[in-house]
Amino acid sequence: MQLRMLYLKQEDVIKAGVLDFDAALKDIEEVFRMMAKGEVVMPPKVAMDLYFPDGSPKGHLVAMPAYIKSLGIAGIKWAAGFFKNPELYGLPHGMDIIVLSDPESGRPLAIMDGTLITAVRTGAVAGVGAKFLAPDGASVAALIGAGVVGRAAGLALCSAMRGLSEVKIYDLKEEKARRLVNELPVDARSVRSAEEAIRDSDIIITATTSHSQFVKLEWLKKDCLCIELGKNEFEDSVILNSGVLVVDYWEQIKARSWVSLTRLWRDGLLNESRIKSIIDVVEEGRVEGGGLRFFSPIGMACEDLIVAYRIYRTAREKGLGIELSLWEEPYWA
Amino acid sequence: MQLRMLYLKQEDVIKAGVLDFDAALKDIEEVFRMMAKGEVVMPPKVAMDLYFPDGSPKGHLVAMPAYIKSLGIAGIKWAAGFFKNPELYGLPHGMDIIVLSDPESGRPLAIMDGTLITAVRTGAVAGVGAKFLAPDGASVAALIGAGVVGRAAGLALCSAMRGLSEVKIYDLKEEKARRLVNELPVDARSVRSAEEAIRDSDIIITATTSHSQFVKLEWLKKDCLCIELGKNEFEDSVILNSGVLVVDYWEQIKARSWVSLTRLWRDGLLNESRIKSIIDVVEEGRVEGGGLRFFSPIGMACEDLIVAYRIYRTAREKGLGIELSLWEEPYWA
Repeated sequence: MQLRMLYLKQEDVIKAGVLDFDAALKDIEEVFRMMAKGEVVMPPKVAMDLYFPDGSPKGHLVAMPAYIKSLGIAGIKWAAGFFKNPELYGLPHGMDIIVLSDPESGRPLAIMDGTLITAVRTGAVAGVGAKFLAPDGASVAALIGAGVVGRAAGLALCSAMRGLSEVKIYDLKEEKARRLVNELPVDARSVRSAEEAIRDSDIIITATTSHSQFVKLEWLKKDCLCIELGKNEFEDSVILNSGVLVVDYWEQIKARSWVSLTRLWRDGLLNESRIKSIIDVVEEGRVEGGGLRFFSPIGMACEDLIVAYRIYRTAREKGLGIELSLWEEPYWA
Repeated sequence: MQLRMLYLKQEDVIKAGVLDFDAALKDIEEVFRMMAKGEVVMPPKVAMDLYFPDGSPKGHLVAMPAYIKSLGIAGIKWAAGFFKNPELYGLPHGMDIIVLSDPESGRPLAIMDGTLITAVRTGAVAGVGAKFLAPDGASVAALIGAGVVGRAAGLALCSAMRGLSEVKIYDLKEEKARRLVNELPVDARSVRSAEEAIRDSDIIITATTSHSQFVKLEWLKKDCLCIELGKNEFEDSVILNSGVLVVDYWEQIKARSWVSLTRLWRDGLLNESRIKSIIDVVEEGRVEGGGLRFFSPIGMACEDLIVAYRIYRTAREKGLGIELSLWEEPYWA
């Protein structure tokens, strides 16, 4: 008997609604609540780090399996992130493939481009973080990095925080910042430095590949939320002085020695009892008040899975994509 | 710019030579030698175990990434193994998808059915094990289980051990054993019990889903090799009395509490210093002499990867499969 699966290229994933940020925010908040209820099976993701012959980091390939019991869906994201792709090959930094599987039989249901899903769900995680962690009355946001993830984060932030009065955007390439200014549905402007964007902002989102910890504590307002989507963008004093420290999956972050939080914890400078999970934050409700808050999500397979499953169902309804056979007739059946 | 990948269904994988057991044996031996040279990056595979509502095991979904530096290829197998598929859904027990990726840019090169590749490489591992571990003068083999993996193991064994005089096959379903009798290129016969197959055999391969440790020490010749492809088929005394104990990836086996070897080790009955790696065996050469030998491979991602990469190259040469676009034009590039 033929085994058929749906194949969705990026254009199909778009037609199936991946750029609907309201839906993505709903997905992410929902999967966090499912995690709180123990409905998500998700081993830590497994990364292979690759290096150039000179020993400098080339990129990584990451396997991210998950299973959401209450939705009855399992799957994996196979994620590539290669730092020099744009300049070396004219390829994006990230390229992802998602396979969805039926958790009753293990049969594959769909294979799809996961590249935009990754960007959108990462942006939506920042959006959910802002909704629950922004200080009271937050209205000005800074976005550092207007690449694929930065754009998604900007769009998700505007969906999550309808009361924003201004978004200041900085990118090393001004043209990228300007393009995003025009995409955002709020007052937005391109500024000349990270510092200019960050000073006087209530919410700061960094989405860069920098490891230089360029954001200084002295630039920050007393009451503000820092969301670190890259992993080493804020100087250590920002982390150490934050009253609220939130991550998504501490066990997964702990395994990555190059993350600032991990290094501070390993060096004994940060007690892990101070670290809260965004899952608990969403369960307990918005963190009211002010002070310095720091949110550093590393990304979780269940986020990809819930978005990919919605895309899959919409694609089925709309008749998008093509059918592939895994086999026409299994050999040795 | 469009990003294209090759898609190969099972029929294409067959046309590209997956059933060439000589080639598979060569691949497996080669990848073991590459591992010895440190050319293989392979984190332990990550499994999600799934259960029926009554708590009994339903199956597992396993992520198996690997990267072979000397071949310049990376990839992942997403493997499903669901115990009751044949009776519940008319689907095979195992269904696998393999994605190959370029380790320079991370771009996906191909997606293919990995179901037959899994069976064939597992059989080939048993074949390589027999070549290096069978006692001197081995000529009679027993094969318990004539399912997908058992058939592959029988065929691989006949390729690896050209001097075999007889293969005795037992399966709970006699019809399956008989069918395999006709496929094997040596004298083979179907027998009425596991005991009948095993008594007087020099090489015993078990390829069942049984966890009942049905193979008894008293059935075994003084000089013989036991190859356990299921994971709990030999009674503990067989393992404990073996003079040569070989696995493929001890760290990976150790993580699986339900494997006999792991249980014996955890219970303090087996010192792990007694366990040898097949990688070292292949490096050091055939283990001459006799006595009781036990080989229990759990399967490694690099085995799938080397076979899948050969299939991919052959498919490209022969123009097999279809081209898929991951995207026509990447959004937000």
